[in-house]
Amino acid sequence: MARDFTQAEVDAVYKAILARRDIRVFLPDKLPDDVVDRILRAGHHGPSVGYMQPWNFVVIQDKEVLRALQAVVEKERIRAGEPYSDAKRDYYLRLKVEGLVEAPMTICVTNDPTRGGPHVLGRNTIPETDLMSTACAIENMWLAARAEGVAMGWVSIYEKDDVRKILGIPNHVDPAALLTIGYTPHFPEIPLLERVGWGTRRDFAEVVFENRWGTRPARST
Amino acid sequence: MARDFTQAEVDAVYKAILARRDIRVFLPDKLPDDVVDRILRAGHHGPSVGYMQPWNFVVIQDKEVLRALQAVVEKERIRAGEPYSDAKRDYYLRLKVEGLVEAPMTICVTNDPTRGGPHVLGRNTIPETDLMSTACAIENMWLAARAEGVAMGWVSIYEKDDVRKILGIPNHVDPAALLTIGYTPHFPEIPLLERVGWGTRRDFAEVVFENRWGTRPARST
Repeated sequence: MARDFTQAEVDAVYKAILARRDIRVFLPDKLPDDVVDRILRAGHHGPSVGYMQPWNFVVIQDKEVLRALQAVVEKERIRAGEPYSDAKRDYYLRLKVEGLVEAPMTICVTNDPTRGGPHVLGRNTIPETDLMSTACAIENMWLAARAEGVAMGWVSIYEKDDVRKILGIPNHVDPAALLTIGYTPHFPEIPLLERVGWGTRRDFAEVVFENRWGTRPARST
Repeated sequence: MARDFTQAEVDAVYKAILARRDIRVFLPDKLPDDVVDRILRAGHHGPSVGYMQPWNFVVIQDKEVLRALQAVVEKERIRAGEPYSDAKRDYYLRLKVEGLVEAPMTICVTNDPTRGGPHVLGRNTIPETDLMSTACAIENMWLAARAEGVAMGWVSIYEKDDVRKILGIPNHVDPAALLTIGYTPHFPEIPLLERVGWGTRRDFAEVVFENRWGTRPARST
């Protein structure tokens, strides 16, 4: 068996996983290039089906581009409030859902489903493993950022074609996520949506089954 | 600014990210319950769009269930070799693509796209953010496992309905991944598919753009 992490190192990994938060409040301070590089490299070292590495990272600091992105997000944010009941809609519209203009940097993470050709090893029955690979890259970036004291917010309210147009992304490439990143005054202990009463973390005992869907583990967890 | 990780802790997070490997060789030793619990909790602390937490974890140790899963994976593994040219197919078929029978445990991670109701915050324009959330949970598990000295292999070659039938998963729930986990003799430095010449890691400079798709960063990275 290979035990090559000290207990302190194991603890640090869990610390990052448990302390990671989706942040919407950013300080204007620019991020040092070396920090950004390490976060991007963490993403590039994500796992990918058949080693296809379907991701690219468009690093945006140009304020004009950020404002254009902010406008297409704001358009969808208002539209997204429509299905809610009046009270919930008011509440929703007051929620701060993005920090595209405040944060010094946004990274558009893209997914190219054609990368690696038509027969990617391990992707024959579940084509969306490309997008899942890209999501794993994002989680790597998020944890790396958290350890570096850098905040990240995942913005997912936009029409992909709007973002393609602004960033010049080819039609076959998927702008999978907009990640706002920067420093923040503090990382809250409780996730934002839990703090504001929008949702709660599900009971751990509810999410785990044993050998078959619906069967609770016999051992106590 | 919030700097709450020591340099040693930051290093440990990068160590896990860079040392994570997709492993196909497992020792039969059972994993301690507390280790499995911590890995599952790492997954459950993944980010999710609108806090929907769409995942469940079916923890499988029953050998009969594992053999049934192995059979449906093997069926698709052979079918997946068909499009390759003769030489590449022979090569592909000799690759060890899964350790479902050798590993003491497999976790089926599922994604429920209906969780949180029809209007999940932040999921109006990109519905697949549910699956991306589940993938982030998987990456958390993978990094936690790596730090614990536990190997993981992501098996993605199966028809979802076959896995649903074996595990009793409802039709609306997506068996998103089969993760084989257990101890391994060693974690290779080079990813398997690179070691066998199937692919190489893309040049980091190729994956990063600045402000616009196709524009290389001016600064050297």
